[in-house]
Amino acid sequence: MKLYGYFRSSAAYRVRIALNLKGIEVEQVGVHLLKDGGQQHQPSFRARNPQGLVPALELDDGTILTQSLAIIDYLDSIHPEPRLVPAEPVLAAKTRAAAFAIACDIHPLNNLRVLGYLKGPLGRSQAEVDEWYRHWLLQGGLEPVEAMIEGGRFCFGDQPSLADICLIPQVFNARRYKVDISHLKKIEAVDAHCKTLPAFLAAHPLRQPDAEP
Amino acid sequence: MKLYGYFRSSAAYRVRIALNLKGIEVEQVGVHLLKDGGQQHQPSFRARNPQGLVPALELDDGTILTQSLAIIDYLDSIHPEPRLVPAEPVLAAKTRAAAFAIACDIHPLNNLRVLGYLKGPLGRSQAEVDEWYRHWLLQGGLEPVEAMIEGGRFCFGDQPSLADICLIPQVFNARRYKVDISHLKKIEAVDAHCKTLPAFLAAHPLRQPDAEP
Repeated sequence: MKLYGYFRSSAAYRVRIALNLKGIEVEQVGVHLLKDGGQQHQPSFRARNPQGLVPALELDDGTILTQSLAIIDYLDSIHPEPRLVPAEPVLAAKTRAAAFAIACDIHPLNNLRVLGYLKGPLGRSQAEVDEWYRHWLLQGGLEPVEAMIEGGRFCFGDQPSLADICLIPQVFNARRYKVDISHLKKIEAVDAHCKTLPAFLAAHPLRQPDAEP
Repeated sequence: MKLYGYFRSSAAYRVRIALNLKGIEVEQVGVHLLKDGGQQHQPSFRARNPQGLVPALELDDGTILTQSLAIIDYLDSIHPEPRLVPAEPVLAAKTRAAAFAIACDIHPLNNLRVLGYLKGPLGRSQAEVDEWYRHWLLQGGLEPVEAMIEGGRFCFGDQPSLADICLIPQVFNARRYKVDISHLKKIEAVDAHCKTLPAFLAAHPLRQPDAEP
């Protein structure tokens, strides 16, 4: 399988963590979101993903899967161990809700194309864009997620789940954009623990083949 | 079970369709997103959902589930027929990808709180807000979704799925905001067919107990 991604894309980062947790090896193909006017917009990539977004997972028969959470559900069905969503329905729903609160209610508002629209067509200043980022990250955002998760070593229970897979890349973004999240004690504890685990470490943006300083 | 929702919320609309497809009856509780400064922000509702968003599903034991797609997965696990996500893993991934393209990449950018931020803190004009809405709906958006779905009576295959459950409320929004989608032939055909089905009809915003003209 081939994973089309970008080292800093938090959606690609999620899929890398899931692949590592399951011990699935893939070939990584870098799609540079900033070079050449955005390689994700080129016809060769749009043919793979009409949304022009990373990640995309190409299966050995050429089938292309897109949307990080759909890819992770696929990995969970073809390679069920370890489970990334608990079997018990209520716990599964809480795990997915925390994941979706990040993947639907934070990430799409703060990704490159939206920040570009704020700066370009809407002509907003860097300070306004930074405040937008901080606002949706926190209030949008990680503050409710802090209330939604159980906390401990992981968001829920004793094993990494889809919630942690979405949380850790979002915390990486928060730190990169220098948003203070020190009041979110459960999130900080989960982040500190996951950082020690090989599956999360190996998925880190700066450890990818296409990483840049 | 009780469903906290708002007649025009497309996330609540999704859950209503899923409940109807499965023949599950719930008590509906209206949370008015515009009255009283937004009833979803009141402490009594925030205690139910820290995100301050609808829908929320209260189970008979008082457990609260949030995030429409997590609620729908829960309904699919406690009440498996009819399945809302196909069993075959690749088709399941394609179904989920189309659903997430709508639920992650269109809806969060165009919901009330974001449009309010553009008008309020960013001081954008109604024309700029309308163009933002149109841009993310189409390019974000429904144009790639048109390429992602198979088409026919439903997004995929012969049965309604999670993809249709996300698509129909988004098409309702497009029409409400007068965004022309007549070039999206597959989407228009799916919408035309689903509109004839009782589960979709009964979930329509204007047929809800809290509907307003």
